[in-house]
This record gives sequence, structure tokens and C-alpha cells, in this order.
Amino acid sequence: MDCSAGQVTRDSTAADIPQLNFERINPVTGPIFIDGAEPGDIVKVTIQHFKPSGFGWTANIPGFGLLADQFKDPALTLWSYDPHTMTPAAFGAQGAVPLKPFAGTIGLALAEPGLHSVVPPRAVGGNLDIRDLSVGSELYLPVQVAGGLFSIGDTHAAQGDGEVCGTAIESQMDVTVKLDLIKQTPLTMPRFTTQGPVTRHLDSKGYDVTTGIGEDLMAGAKAAVSNMIDLLSSRHNLNPVDAYMLCSTCGDLRISEIVDMPNWVVSFYFPRIVFD
Amino acid sequence: MDCSAGQVTRDSTAADIPQLNFERINPVTGPIFIDGAEPGDIVKVTIQHFKPSGFGWTANIPGFGLLADQFKDPALTLWSYDPHTMTPAAFGAQGAVPLKPFAGTIGLALAEPGLHSVVPPRAVGGNLDIRDLSVGSELYLPVQVAGGLFSIGDTHAAQGDGEVCGTAIESQMDVTVKLDLIKQTPLTMPRFTTQGPVTRHLDSKGYDVTTGIGEDLMAGAKAAVSNMIDLLSSRHNLNPVDAYMLCSTCGDLRISEIVDMPNWVVSFYFPRIVFD
Repeated sequence: MDCSAGQVTRDSTAADIPQLNFERINPVTGPIFIDGAEPGDIVKVTIQHFKPSGFGWTANIPGFGLLADQFKDPALTLWSYDPHTMTPAAFGAQGAVPLKPFAGTIGLALAEPGLHSVVPPRAVGGNLDIRDLSVGSELYLPVQVAGGLFSIGDTHAAQGDGEVCGTAIESQMDVTVKLDLIKQTPLTMPRFTTQGPVTRHLDSKGYDVTTGIGEDLMAGAKAAVSNMIDLLSSRHNLNPVDAYMLCSTCGDLRISEIVDMPNWVVSFYFPRIVFD
Repeated sequence: MDCSAGQVTRDSTAADIPQLNFERINPVTGPIFIDGAEPGDIVKVTIQHFKPSGFGWTANIPGFGLLADQFKDPALTLWSYDPHTMTPAAFGAQGAVPLKPFAGTIGLALAEPGLHSVVPPRAVGGNLDIRDLSVGSELYLPVQVAGGLFSIGDTHAAQGDGEVCGTAIESQMDVTVKLDLIKQTPLTMPRFTTQGPVTRHLDSKGYDVTTGIGEDLMAGAKAAVSNMIDLLSSRHNLNPVDAYMLCSTCGDLRISEIVDMPNWVVSFYFPRIVFD
């Protein structure tokens, strides 16, 4: 299921966003008990196939997202795409966002008693929202409980690094993965391997890049994204919140330098192909 | 000149690093007074050509770098490369680092009296260490003082996003740039445009990726890099400090998600082509 558990449909509007039942947010398929998995093992997840649905949405949810202080009102973008050709999805009359499906939430259970929110990712994985966990990638997750208890969900048709507005192109799809067990091998946090390049679906025309420079990485990230929203809004005559949601689906947050004391540089890369 | 002002040579050893005269560090060529430039203008820098020298170095300088607490001893890697073919530079017997020259320090003067260290980057640019300010990129810098006062230096033969150990492949080279003046246009921080993809020199074999997950982006960045050093050290039988310096020349820090409260995911992408 998508992260709204099907609450957002082709008929939804921005007014429906605050009405979402948040107790149903981010459902996952699972847990799957893996025979023989024990604490200290690794579950290797080979991501084999996605069968997307063709419908997706991106929302600004009040109180959620990198620039929640700046964008306080609900907003919604609906996407329709061809699940067979996976042609870039139209953004208004001018733009198109290249697609690259992945599962935002993918992980094992943690070894702590009680109920745990599925929103924050943890050492066992979970809501990682890593754009490059797409077809062909191999993800390694540390086992903390007997059976590992693998779950997956929160499928995205496209997302940029950062998922800056808090949602991607949220889109229901079927996923095929292969699980292998690697016995007693140290691993503190998830790692993965990609079989090839990770940005070729959108990098051919280069990037427009804004920066955020200062003593705090979070403030730098906010400044870089805010500067990109200003640039896109003025250049393409976009409503700023629409530029914000667009950035979340295709723009990448990178740390350009983290050593030139006391100021770090966070950069936001927006692929020019979207409007080219 | 390179960032050591020529103090590091083909004969240097790790023991020479603490003896560097830090008053000579990071010299820049300039300042260039741009006729007609006034506060509120933009200087557009088109990066046209690099003529590299063929010699470079990477150092762990005690007290400097993302993992300064973990790597307290000086270390030095010397690089020799063909400045005409720009073939990837050999790393020991096993590896090779793809090259992509750029100027680490590129900027204007700030409108504050007094002397200013060239180490931290600022809103007017400076020690940005942005890997993608390479041939063809167009950089936009805000003018704060009459004439702009453009300077450039700190040339690198290769660097990953983050420059995690604090140095790249530091390498003297000649640079050709074109300066244009854009009158009275708002710009709060540097931005740039790339003419094409930015990672194709190293992404063809994909990446190994480690993560750092938690409530603080800086801690996440440290964890992601530290986890990659562990992986590379064990897989390729490397001294950890050598893996650290290697990571600085070719691995990229990315923010995978910055919205799934309260935990963010910082990822470190190491290009598999280096050892493939």
C-alpha cells in the first residue's frame, strides 16, 4: 500500500490532507519471519522488481517536512504515469519528473519491547527513504531479534535525496525482493550496494544547484532548499509550495564540504531535465 | 598554487605534515577588481579550463577533518597522474581514483573590515570545496564590495562530496575562468549550473553505500564515513587512515532523508570503480 494506506485518491484535494487518519499512516507488509535468523546475523535484501500502479501523490502535510515553519498550509500534487513505459510524469504544463521506483520503508524489527512508530528509521532500517534502494540494489540489514521480522512498504515512484517536503511521489506498487541470511557478521547500520549508476535517469542535462553555508548542517540544508524554491518559483512562475513539493520528488541534498571550520556547505541539486 | 603553497612535494612524508607553516595555507590568486561591480550585483564565473600539474597529495592533518577525534596522527598519500590523459590515479596496487579537476576556493571579498581567514566559506563563496565546480560549470556569486574582488585557488585533481578527511587530491594547476557582471540581481548565497552530469567519471560500476542514522546530521555523517572506513579496511586490507584519505578523494556524502522525525539518514557513497 502507499503511505496513506489508500486514503489519498485521484479525487483528493489539499483540503483532505489535514483530515487524513494518521493512525493509518505508513502501513507495511510483514513481518516475515526468516527461519534461522538470530541477533548478530545479517539479512541481505536483493531488490528485484517493482510493479507500479500508475497513480501517485505528493503532499505538504502541516507540521511535517524540512521547511514546515515556512509552509504551514496543506497542499497536494496528484501524479498520473504510465506504469509500463515509466515515462517521466508530467508536472503541470512545463515539467516532467523522471521515475525510479523504490520502497521507502524496508527493515527488520528492533530488539526493544513495546510499540514503535514506523516513522523514524533506525539501525535495523525502516523508513530509510533512500532513493537508490531501487531495482538491483542489495541491502544489508542487521538482525536484532529471532527471525529478523522483515517488513516493507511506503513505495515511491520517484524521490530526491532528502525527501525534503516529507513526501515523495507516493504510489502503491507490488515489490519482489529476495531475502538471504548471512550468519554472524558484524554490521552496525544498514549498508547497500548498487549495481550501476544511480542518477542516470535524470542527470543528462546537468543540474541547477543552490547552496546553504553556515555552522549547522540542518540550517544549511534548509537554506539550500529555500534558495532553490526561490529560483524555481521565479524562473517558472510556480507557487512556492508547488516548487517545494517538486523539489522533494527529484532534487538531491548533498554535503559538499564538512571540514572547513566553522562553515559547512550543503548543496541542493535540481535536475535541469525536468524543465528542459 | 596548491593549498600548501608548495610546501608538500614529491619528497614529503607524513612527518612533514605537522611541520607545515599554517600561515601559508590556502593561498589564492587575486584579488581581481571587476570594473563596475557594486554591492547587489552578481559575478558570473564560467569555468573554462584546467591545466593540471600531474602531482598531488592528500593528508590527514591532526585536528582537522570530519573524524579528527578518531585519526589523531598525521598521514600522507602522494599521487602521480598524467596531466594530459587524466587517467585515474593509482591508489596502491589495487585501486585507481578517477580525476575531475576543480578549484576548491573561489569567491569574492566580504563586506566586513579586517583580516579574514580563507578557511571557512561564506555567502560570497570562498573555500566552497564543491566538487562540481569543474569545466563548464557557471557559478554565480553575490557582490558585497566595490569591484567584487575575485580570488581563486586551492585546486584539486579529485574530491568527493564532503572532502571528509579535510584534504582532496591537492594539486597545483592553471585555471582559466571568464567573469561576467550581472547588475543588481538578488542572490543570498552562491549557486551554480552544471552543463551535464556530474558523476559519470566514476559512477559506471555503481556504489557501495554506508549509512549514519540518528537525530543529528553531523553525527550521522561521521557514522556513515566511519562505517565505510571499516568496510574498505577489512575488504581491501587497508590501514584505516589510508581508507579515510581515499574516501575524501572520491566518496560522496548525501542526505538520504531529512524529514522522518526524529531520525535523519546520511549516506556515504563510495564508487566501486575505484577497486573494480
